Amino acid sequence: MATTRLPSAGFSITIRIGVTADASAIGRLTTCVGEAGAIVTALDVVDSDPTTVIVDLTCDTADSGHADQVVAALSALDGVDVRKVSDRTFLLHLGGKIEVAPKVALRTRDELSRAYTPGVARVCLAIAENPADARRLTIKRNTVAVVTDGTAVLGLGNIGPAAALPVMEGKAALFKRFGGVDAWPVVLDTTDPDEIVSIVRAIAPGYGGINLEDIAAPRCFEIEARLREQLDIPVFHDDQHGTAICVLAALTNALRVVGKQLADVRVVVSGAGAAGTAIMKLLLRQGVGDIIAYDRQGALHRGLPDLNPAWQWLAENTNKDNYSGDLAGAVRGADVFIGVSAPNLLTGDDIAAMAKDSIVFALANPDPEVDPREARKHAAVVATGRSDQPNQINNVLAFPGVFRGMLDAHAEEFTEEMAIAAAQAIADVVGEDKINPTVIVPSVFDSRVAPAVAAAVRAAAQAPAPPPAADPGPADLPEIAAENAAPANPLSN
Amino acid sequence: MATTRLPSAGFSITIRIGVTADASAIGRLTTCVGEAGAIVTALDVVDSDPTTVIVDLTCDTADSGHADQVVAALSALDGVDVRKVSDRTFLLHLGGKIEVAPKVALRTRDELSRAYTPGVARVCLAIAENPADARRLTIKRNTVAVVTDGTAVLGLGNIGPAAALPVMEGKAALFKRFGGVDAWPVVLDTTDPDEIVSIVRAIAPGYGGINLEDIAAPRCFEIEARLREQLDIPVFHDDQHGTAICVLAALTNALRVVGKQLADVRVVVSGAGAAGTAIMKLLLRQGVGDIIAYDRQGALHRGLPDLNPAWQWLAENTNKDNYSGDLAGAVRGADVFIGVSAPNLLTGDDIAAMAKDSIVFALANPDPEVDPREARKHAAVVATGRSDQPNQINNVLAFPGVFRGMLDAHAEEFTEEMAIAAAQAIADVVGEDKINPTVIVPSVFDSRVAPAVAAAVRAAAQAPAPPPAADPGPADLPEIAAENAAPANPLSN
Repeated sequence: MATTRLPSAGFSITIRIGVTADASAIGRLTTCVGEAGAIVTALDVVDSDPTTVIVDLTCDTADSGHADQVVAALSALDGVDVRKVSDRTFLLHLGGKIEVAPKVALRTRDELSRAYTPGVARVCLAIAENPADARRLTIKRNTVAVVTDGTAVLGLGNIGPAAALPVMEGKAALFKRFGGVDAWPVVLDTTDPDEIVSIVRAIAPGYGGINLEDIAAPRCFEIEARLREQLDIPVFHDDQHGTAICVLAALTNALRVVGKQLADVRVVVSGAGAAGTAIMKLLLRQGVGDIIAYDRQGALHRGLPDLNPAWQWLAENTNKDNYSGDLAGAVRGADVFIGVSAPNLLTGDDIAAMAKDSIVFALANPDPEVDPREARKHAAVVATGRSDQPNQINNVLAFPGVFRGMLDAHAEEFTEEMAIAAAQAIADVVGEDKINPTVIVPSVFDSRVAPAVAAAVRAAAQAPAPPPAADPGPADLPEIAAENAAPANPLSN
Repeated sequence: MATTRLPSAGFSITIRIGVTADASAIGRLTTCVGEAGAIVTALDVVDSDPTTVIVDLTCDTADSGHADQVVAALSALDGVDVRKVSDRTFLLHLGGKIEVAPKVALRTRDELSRAYTPGVARVCLAIAENPADARRLTIKRNTVAVVTDGTAVLGLGNIGPAAALPVMEGKAALFKRFGGVDAWPVVLDTTDPDEIVSIVRAIAPGYGGINLEDIAAPRCFEIEARLREQLDIPVFHDDQHGTAICVLAALTNALRVVGKQLADVRVVVSGAGAAGTAIMKLLLRQGVGDIIAYDRQGALHRGLPDLNPAWQWLAENTNKDNYSGDLAGAVRGADVFIGVSAPNLLTGDDIAAMAKDSIVFALANPDPEVDPREARKHAAVVATGRSDQPNQINNVLAFPGVFRGMLDAHAEEFTEEMAIAAAQAIADVVGEDKINPTVIVPSVFDSRVAPAVAAAVRAAAQAPAPPPAADPGPADLPEIAAENAAPANPLSN
C-alpha cells in the first residue's frame, strides 16, 4: 500500500500481562511495545505479589495483524506472561451501540393512562382522522430509517445484513449526536430491488425520512428512484448524495483557494458507482467545465457498448472530447481529480502532470487513489477520506444537518436545491478568513456545521420554519413545560 | 353502558381561564368543575392585574364529551372567559414517546474511530465470519420489533399503521420500563399476510425477537405460524400469548381462592379471536375440565358449517356436550366465565346462575361483558381489564419479562412451556399468604414481576443463564468498565 497505516484508537488493544517484579520490568514492556511500532496509551497495575506484578497495558496498533505482532513481541520477552488480550473496539460494541429510551415517565397509574391505554386511544383516533398529525404526535416527527441490504458496506463489499448492523448502529448514533435525529437501523435480508422497494414503502408510515446506506450500484439508483416516486417522505442515499454534498462543499472552497471558477475547470472522476455518479450529476448541475468519468472499463465515452442506464447517461453527458485513453492520460492537464474508487491508481508524477494549481480529492478508504504526501508535492489542494490527514471529507458533515432540516420543514422529498444549499452551508462555515490549502472543510466536530446545514435545507424546502401545527393548547403551562419538554432535539425550533 | 366511566388522568385537560378578580372567583370555578363531575387536580395563577386573574385549571374528566361539558359549564359562568383548552395526553405525545439514544460517546476522534470507521469494520468482519456474534456485538442482543398492520388496535379496530403508532410507541416504552428491552415500532402499510411475512422475515436480522401486535384474527394466526417456521428468533403475538399467560396466572390464583382444580371446572369463553383462542389452547394444554367457546355466530360446536381453520379446531377440541344454545344458557352452572369480546353480554342474574364459587373475568375494555359491581354480588372472584377495579388483568405483567427471558436465553422460539412457566411466575408473585378474592394478580407496578417471569422463561428455555460468549477480554479492566458499562439492561445477567 502507498500510505503506511499509523496506530489508531480504532485498533486499540488491552493486554493483561504478568511480569517478574524487578525494577526494570515495566520499562521492558513499554520499550518492547514502542519498538513494535505501537503507542502505549495506558498502563494499570491490576495485582501484585512479592515476585510478580500483573498489569493491563493498553496501546494503539495499526491493524489486526500489527496487534498480533505486538502481542507476539511481548510474549517473547523473558519473564513475561501474556494472559489475555482484549480489544477495546469489540468491548465497546457489546450489546450494541444504540438503545430505545422512553421520553415519557411511566411511574404511576396516571402516567400510564396518558401514555398508554386509555388515553392513547384518543391520540390514535386523531391521527386516523387527520393522518398529517402523525408528524406531530408520533416518532415520525423526528425519525429516519437507515436502510441497507448489506451489499456495499464500507470497503468490505457484500457482507450481508447482520454484519452491516454495526455500521448502521454507528450511523444512527452519529445522526443523534450531530443532528438530534432519531435514526433506526433497518437491515434487510434480501437484495431484490422489488422486495426492498416494497418493504421500505410498507414501513414508511413510521418514519419522517429514509436514508439508504451501503446498497451496491447500480441497484441503488433504481431503488432510490422508485422510492422517491412512491413515498411522501424524503429518500436520501447517503453514499450518493451525502458524498456529493461534501465534495461540492470541499471543491467550492478549494476553488476559492486556487482562484478558479467551476465553469472553467476540467475534472476527472475515478469511480462511477453510487458516490461518483452523484458527484458528477451535482457538478454538472452546477455548470462544471467538463468531466471525464472512469470505472473498471476505463473512460466512459460514447462508443462503449452495453452500458447500464446510469453509465449510459454519464457517457452521454460528460467527456466532451469523447476521450477513451487511460486514467493517467486523462489526468494530464486536468484541474481537478476526484477519486472514489480504489487505492494507488496514480503516482506523484501523474499529479505533477495536472494543470497548475491542481486539486486532488483522493477519497478511497483507507488507502487513497494516490499517496497524499506525494500528491501534496505537486497539487495546490489535497483532500482524503482519512482522519489522520488534513482536509478529511466525511459525510457526517452533511447527513445529520440535511435530515434535521428536512424533518423540521416536514419535507416530502430531497431535492438538488437542498443538496446545493447544504454544500454551500458547509463551505461557508469555514469562513473566507480561515480558508487555506489545508482547511477547505470544517472539522466533523465543528458544532456550527449541522445547524447551518439544517437552516440551509429548511430554506431550500421553502419552509423557513416548521409549519404551524394545530395548537394543542397553552405551550407555556409551567407543569406541562416541565413534564413534556420540547422534543429532545437540540436543533429543532 | 353498564359501568359509568369515572374521571381519569387519561382524559386530563388544562383550561386557561380569565376571571374577574373578586374574593369568590376561584371558588366559583372549582365548584363549577366539581358540579360538572370532573376532578380538579391543579390550579395555577398565570397572570393577574387589579381587576382580573388568569389561571390554568387542570382537571380529570371521564371522556372527550365530558371534557366539552366541563368547558361549556365554565364558559357559561358570569365574568369567566375560557381562553384555551389543552389536553395533557396530546401534549405528552408531541414528537413521539420514544427516542434513539447512543450508548457510546462520540466526543473525540478516538471515540469516533472505535464506534464508526475504521474500527467498526473489524466488528463487521467478525459477524460476517460468525453470524451468531450478532447477538453479542449488536442491538440484536436486546431488541424486539413491535409489528402491526393497524387492523385491530385496542378496541378501535382497523385504523391503519400511522394511527396505530402511538400504541406501538407506548408498548416500546413499557418494554423498556418494565423489562429493560429495546423495542422498536414497525407499523406496516399492508394487510396482506404474504407481504407481512416476507417483510418481517427480511427485517429479522436486526432483532432478537418479534412481538406481533394488534393484527386482526384470523390472519394473525397464519402470519404467526409462518413466521415461527421461517425465523430463528422467537415470534410472540401479544394479543394471543400475552393475554393467555395473564389469564392463566389469574385463573391459577382464583382457583386457589375457591379451592377448585382446573381439571374439574367448566369454562365459558366469550370471544374466539386472537386472545380467546390462545387462552383456550393454553387451558386445554393444562387439562381444563371443559370449555364452551362463543363468538358472533354463537357457541362453537361440531355442526357449524364453513368455519375458518382456527374456529374449526376449537369446535373439534372444546364443548364436550356439543352445546349450541345461547351464552346465558352456557354460563348456567359453569365455574368460570372469561370474556374477551364485547360489553354488556351478561347480567347479574346470569352470574347468579353460575356454579357456586364462580369466577368471572370480564376483560372487554373499557366496558366489560358484565358490570363488575353486579358480578361481585354473585361470583367469588371477579377480574376486569380496567385499572379502576380490583384484579386488573393487564398484559404488561407478561410481555416485558417474557422477552427479557427469551433474549437472555438467546431463545430461538417461544414455546408453550415458556407460557406456562411465565403464568406460574406471575401467579406466585402474589404469595399464598396475600391471595384473596380482590388480589389474584400482582400490580403492574410490582417490580418483582418481570424478573420472576424472565427467570422462569429462561429456565423453560433450558438455558439457565445466557450462553457463554467468546470472551472479548478482561471484563474487569477499570477504564473499560467505566466506558463500556454493561448493557443498559437492569434484568440481564
